[in-house]
Order: sequence, then structure tokens, then C-alpha cells
Amino acid sequence: MTQQRLVVIGGDAAGMSAASKVRREDPKREIVVFERSPHTSYSACGMPYFIAGLVDGPEKLVARSPEKFRDKYNIDARTGHEVTELDLGNQRVRVRSLADSSEAWEAYDQLLIATGAEAIFPKLPNSDSDGIFGLSTLASGIRVQQFMDQQLPRRAVVVGGGYIGLEMAEALVRQGLQVALVERGEQVMGTLDPDMGALVSDALREIGVELYLNESLTGYEAANGLVTAVVTDQRTLPADLVIVGLGTRPNSSLAAAAGITLGEKGSIRVNPRMQTSAPNVWAAGDCAESFHLVSRKPFHVALGTVANKQGSVAGINLAGGYATFPGVVGTAVSKICKYEVARTGLMEREINGLGLKYKTATTKSKTRAGYYPGAGWITVKLLAEQGTGRLLGGQIVGQEGAAKRIDVLATALTAGMTVQQIVDLDLSYAPPFSPVWDPVQTAARQLLGSSD
Amino acid sequence: MTQQRLVVIGGDAAGMSAASKVRREDPKREIVVFERSPHTSYSACGMPYFIAGLVDGPEKLVARSPEKFRDKYNIDARTGHEVTELDLGNQRVRVRSLADSSEAWEAYDQLLIATGAEAIFPKLPNSDSDGIFGLSTLASGIRVQQFMDQQLPRRAVVVGGGYIGLEMAEALVRQGLQVALVERGEQVMGTLDPDMGALVSDALREIGVELYLNESLTGYEAANGLVTAVVTDQRTLPADLVIVGLGTRPNSSLAAAAGITLGEKGSIRVNPRMQTSAPNVWAAGDCAESFHLVSRKPFHVALGTVANKQGSVAGINLAGGYATFPGVVGTAVSKICKYEVARTGLMEREINGLGLKYKTATTKSKTRAGYYPGAGWITVKLLAEQGTGRLLGGQIVGQEGAAKRIDVLATALTAGMTVQQIVDLDLSYAPPFSPVWDPVQTAARQLLGSSD
Repeated sequence: MTQQRLVVIGGDAAGMSAASKVRREDPKREIVVFERSPHTSYSACGMPYFIAGLVDGPEKLVARSPEKFRDKYNIDARTGHEVTELDLGNQRVRVRSLADSSEAWEAYDQLLIATGAEAIFPKLPNSDSDGIFGLSTLASGIRVQQFMDQQLPRRAVVVGGGYIGLEMAEALVRQGLQVALVERGEQVMGTLDPDMGALVSDALREIGVELYLNESLTGYEAANGLVTAVVTDQRTLPADLVIVGLGTRPNSSLAAAAGITLGEKGSIRVNPRMQTSAPNVWAAGDCAESFHLVSRKPFHVALGTVANKQGSVAGINLAGGYATFPGVVGTAVSKICKYEVARTGLMEREINGLGLKYKTATTKSKTRAGYYPGAGWITVKLLAEQGTGRLLGGQIVGQEGAAKRIDVLATALTAGMTVQQIVDLDLSYAPPFSPVWDPVQTAARQLLGSSD
Repeated sequence: MTQQRLVVIGGDAAGMSAASKVRREDPKREIVVFERSPHTSYSACGMPYFIAGLVDGPEKLVARSPEKFRDKYNIDARTGHEVTELDLGNQRVRVRSLADSSEAWEAYDQLLIATGAEAIFPKLPNSDSDGIFGLSTLASGIRVQQFMDQQLPRRAVVVGGGYIGLEMAEALVRQGLQVALVERGEQVMGTLDPDMGALVSDALREIGVELYLNESLTGYEAANGLVTAVVTDQRTLPADLVIVGLGTRPNSSLAAAAGITLGEKGSIRVNPRMQTSAPNVWAAGDCAESFHLVSRKPFHVALGTVANKQGSVAGINLAGGYATFPGVVGTAVSKICKYEVARTGLMEREINGLGLKYKTATTKSKTRAGYYPGAGWITVKLLAEQGTGRLLGGQIVGQEGAAKRIDVLATALTAGMTVQQIVDLDLSYAPPFSPVWDPVQTAARQLLGSSD
């Protein structure tokens, strides 16, 4: 195997996990990574905290630098290099150096596409003005911070009430800005059912974020090339900084242009070993498709956890081993203002889409024994299939110590447990950590109709 | 069913859970509870925090008072009443009123034994001196506090390094006492493997607890009926307060005297519906046997979580329904000084006892993203069966946010998951809550030999 040349497109979580895994299995393999940005292996999820001033500098978000990959792992990580074309027939990729715009064809024996996802950034009136930012790469986060340092913006508008939008809204409040948030849906955090999302909306209002729900972005106003306002279908909101948090889409255009099969939401279709439809071409991370273990359907999600897992599986296979990525259950978590917010499995809209009948229970309880200092509130919503009692999903909004309880539900979903089996779980209890019935079990008992 | 008289012996978690469940199902059933102490439904686990001064008063530890049971639930909860004999042939129990020492026979149609466990308190020279306390009931905790208020002790010795012993050692340091702790084993926290227990020993030493490991209690010294020292097989330790934390034993003597079959550690043997060997006699809680879902063997554990679950199952069955208690996986958690300490499943000694071959991995990682403020350390040890890779147990010692991660392992053990399946779990990640690989997955990856 050692004579085979592995080319990786994309130097973040999936690409570098795979490259490291191959290196570990095969000390001599030639491994080349092409990365468009100046950074490798960074935590995109950390950007709101860096902008909030909670993290000292962007370099803290970098787990391993290109130099470290070269020196310690003998991985030729070439930042500032963009792959512009795949030539599958001849097993080569065309690479452009951003420094001097030179182009060259690079041959591969195996190719891993780990091009990630890009922020959705609709082309609208004045959308090319300065002061309007999407957030996907570390470089984009640095640009926001530089803009804030130079322009000292006072009024920010965040468009989109998903994870990044809400985390950024809070970060900007923390930095002293007046912040408005525009969200098309009836509540923020559209990955929660609206009743749970409403709790998060309230928490944002409490710290002073002006919320405009059920409103859609239609464009921007600008003066001298700088944004001055966000225009929605209902009003004009003054703004000297705009964060567009409308989600991401898989960076799959290279693959699509080469005729590789795409799947959910334009992600690259892969089998459980992370192989694409093209021979010797693999894909992993935010650009690749996943599988939902609860709906049993193809699924796409752009998350660091999934990217690391897929990258690791791809790496084992690229090194001649055998590994599969079974899929996800849709787990996500975020800290929004005073709340920890978490979800896993299917929400009501998704369950309805599958035509399943379900029941739900929502309970409010304490994170610790009620008498123990610092006990906070936690609201847990569970969704289960009618008849079988099989758990379908769970959502949590609560104070300190609330969020990570979602992992019990994620594990239970993976195991296909029923609500009764969750009630029966031998979960840990001591007064500083939990009431005697853990809040997820209190919700499960409620769902069974046996709440005393 | 409503003509049937239910008698419950014991008014804490198991007994009152069962009684409440029966009342819910059957509004007319006659339900009588005999409780020796003055209290019902209290949190014994909360006593160290009450003695530490973290909880205002003992009444805060009472979830529901006898009056509340009488007035709100129409349950005749008679505190200060001790059952002294079971007459199974005639379906009656002999009850003594502690107020006036009167005795009477009380008939039952169904009997639930929920007599709990008592602190092990070896009879040794001077062990009847004042100032020496076991801790099991709320009343015993109140006695410790009263003794401290009146005698103002300055030097305490805790005998036994289990959960209660360690929590009490910390509580007494918090109240300004000099504290020594005597433990027979090589490390404190004998429900952890010694390598993990050593971390806890160090944390105790850090707050000034003098630890005497590998030492056994042989007796006490006393003057004027008050304890003055604890004597071990190696030294004499001055003491004006002694807490004996040598564990508990099931209160099963009434049942044994009546010929009811006992099981593990003298607990009352029950089937999964919580029925004993005697007709119409049920048992639940700390006095009853459980089943270990990992070893697949009978098991006894005295914990509020298990008592509540068993009581609930017994209640459903006593009300004419059908429910079973599947068992436990050996989960426990405690806050000891700077550490959160948790365990589930089997430890090395237990696995060896079963004759299984196993491998382990121990990893030290962070509780949050390394760059996020407040990230602490967490050490996770996993144990898995050789060959199959089936998870057998897990232990966690770490800082804030560490302990509740044990619940993922408890859920995985219940589902019979392998270490690979734990690596594959879709656990939640965001920088304030976790590194991108949750620490339990980092340990699982280490165990698979795939740690990069």
C-alpha cells in the first residue's frame, strides 16, 4: 500500500482525522492535503466564544497547525491551495495556489473529499456590502473580529435563529452591542419543537435581544459600501454589523461537477465505509451524507462530532482496514444565554413527515435535589411512538447541568429503547447532581402516565 | 380489590412510593404504614449536606410528611410505630407504639416490607459511648447535629472510606473540625478500582483530611461515657466525634424470623414483581434483593434510586397491575472535595470474581473544549470484555461536569453495547460542554487502540 498517494481536499476535522489515521496505520504513505484557507484542524464551533471575548485569540481554536502536521505527522498540508476540478478518469485534481494563482494537476491513487460546508449567503440587494458576514471558516470569524475592532459597530442584526445565529447574538450582546435577530420561523431554534423554542426566545429577550419572528430577510441598505440596515418583509432594521446565520450547505460542487452522486441536501452520497459513487474516491465530514438511525433514512448534518467520526472511519478504510459509520440520531447542544439547550432524535415535524403516530410529555423539574444549593430548572420533552412506546426524540432546555443529559437519550435512541426502559435505567443520583429520579426519567414517567 | 387492607412496614422511599402508587390506582384501598422513626419520605443521601451546613435544616430533606400522606393521600402513616413480628399464617403483624410501648396485632391482606437498611455498627470496646454515630435514618443525622451543637467537637474520626464516610469527612472539614479517616482498604472508595480510588484519596488529603489506609478499627477509648479516641490495629487517634461509615446491611431480621427466604447479603429475596417467598408478602427498597444486569446475578444495593423504582413496581403490582423491576447496573455517584466521582457496572475485582477476561483503558481529558473557560480535568476508566468488546464497567473521577457522564455508560451497559458502539454514539458536543469527542468516547477509542 505504501506506494499509493493519498490526496485529501480540505484540512479541517474530517480531512485531518482521516489523514492522521492513515499516517498512524502506514508510516510511509504519501499524504497530501489541499486546504483553501490558512488554517487546519480548527474548531469552527468555537468562533462565537472567540468573538464574545471568552477565548483569547483565534489561534486557541486551532488544534493542530499545518506545520505540526508536516513536522510531526509527515503530512504535506498545503494551506492556501484550492482544488478547482476533479478529473476522475485520470485520477488527478487541478490545484490552484492562492498565493500566485498558479495551477497544476496533482495525481492521486486515493482521493478523500472533505470540503466541508459553506454558510448560506443569499444574493440580495446590497448583500455585497462590507459589514455583512456569514460564518463558516475560522478565517470568516477572524474577519468579523477585525471588522469589529476597526469599525466599532454599535447595532448588530443577526439573520437566522439557529445555533450559530443565537450564539453570535449572545456574543455580540456580551461585547456591548445592541442586537436584533430576525427569524423566519415562529420561534428561534428551529431544531426544537416550537413550545421548547419559545423558552429560548424568552431567554434571548431577557438579555435584551430584540426578536423579530415570522419575518424574512429581503435585502440590505448600504452607504459607501458599508451596510446600514437589514430589510425584512415587514421593516427596516438599522445595522452596522450583520451576521447571516441561515445555516450551511455542503460544499459538494466539485464532486457534482465530476459526476459523483449526491444525496440529501446536496451532500455527497457515501456508503457506510464513506466511499462515493466514484472508484477510489471517498468523502467525509460536512460535505458528506449521513444516515439517521431513528428515521432509518439518509440525512445530512454539519457537525464537528460527525465530521471527526466520518473522517476516522474513512481513514481506517483508506489505510486498508475495515470500518463503518453507522449514522447519527440528530444530537445537538448549545448554550444560549441562561439556558443549556439540547435535542436528539426526531421532532414533531419530522415524525409527522414520516407518518408515525406519537405522544409527548414535557416536565419541568430540578437539576439537583431541590434542597441542594444551586439547583436549577430543567424542562425535558420526550416524544415516543404510540403503541410500541419506542423513544423517538428528546429536547432539553434548562440551567446548569441540564444539557448533557441529552446523551442518555441519544444512547437510548441508538439502542432502540422504549420509554419504559428509560424509566428502568439505573442512572446516577446524589443530591449535588440530580433529583432521585433524573429529569429525563421524570419525563419518561409522565409519558407512561405514571408520574407519582 | 378495594376491600383489601395493605400494610406497609417502613415509611421512606420504597414504602411510600408503593403506597402512593396504590392510592393513585385505587382511591378507596385502606393503606396503613408503620414507621419506627418520626419521619416519612426523606432523603438520607442529603444528611452530609445538612451537617455541612449547605442545607438549612433537616425538615428540608423531607419530601412528604406523615401529615401530608394522611391529609392529601388518605394514607394512614403511623410514625413512632415499630413492627416487631410477622405472623404470616394469620396474615397479621405485631406493632409496638414507641410512645406508650403498647402492642397490638394488625391484620393485612397484602404486606409490603420496606424496612430499609441499617448502618453497620460493630460492637467493640466502648462502642456504646456518646459521640459515636452511624448514619442511616434522618433521626441519626439530627442526633449528630445536636451533638455537634452541644459538645462543640474539634477532632473527628471517620471510620470507613465509602460514600457516606467521605461525604461526612468533607462536611466536618467544612464545619471547621480536624478530621482523620480510617479505611481498611488500600484506597478510599472501595467501589472504584484502587487506581481511581487513589485520585480521591489525594483530594481528601488536599483539604486536610488525615488518611489512615490499610488500617482496621479495633475499638474506642472513652471518658465519662464520651468517646475520646478511636483505636485501630496500628494507632490511637484522639476523637471527640466519631462517624462510623462502614456501610449498611438490609433490615431483614423480621422477614428472616418469619421464615421468608433471604438472598444476597441478607437481603429479602424477591422476584421481578417484588414478591417474596411468602404469599401476599412483598418487599422493596434497601431491605430487598436486586439483580445485576451485567453480571446476571442477584445483587444487593442500598440506594434511593433503586428503592424508588422497586417501590413503584411493587405499588403497581399491589394495585393489581403488572410491572417488573429488571435490575441495576451498579451506578453510583458522589461529590468528594474537588471531585465528582462516579461508577457503573463491574470493577476489576468483580470481573475477576466472574472469571471473565477483560481489558481496560484510562484517559485524562477535559470536561469542555480546552479553550473554553472553566474546562476541568476528567479521568475516565473503561473496562470491557476481551474478545467481544462488550462494555463491563466504567469509572469517572473529575471536576465539574464530569460525573453525570456515567449515565451514558449506564445506559450503554443496559443495552449491552460494545466499546465500538460507544465510539459510534452520537453524543452532544459544543465547546461549553465537551471536547468534540466526549471523554467517555476518548476512553473508548483508547480501549480500541485507536486514539488519534
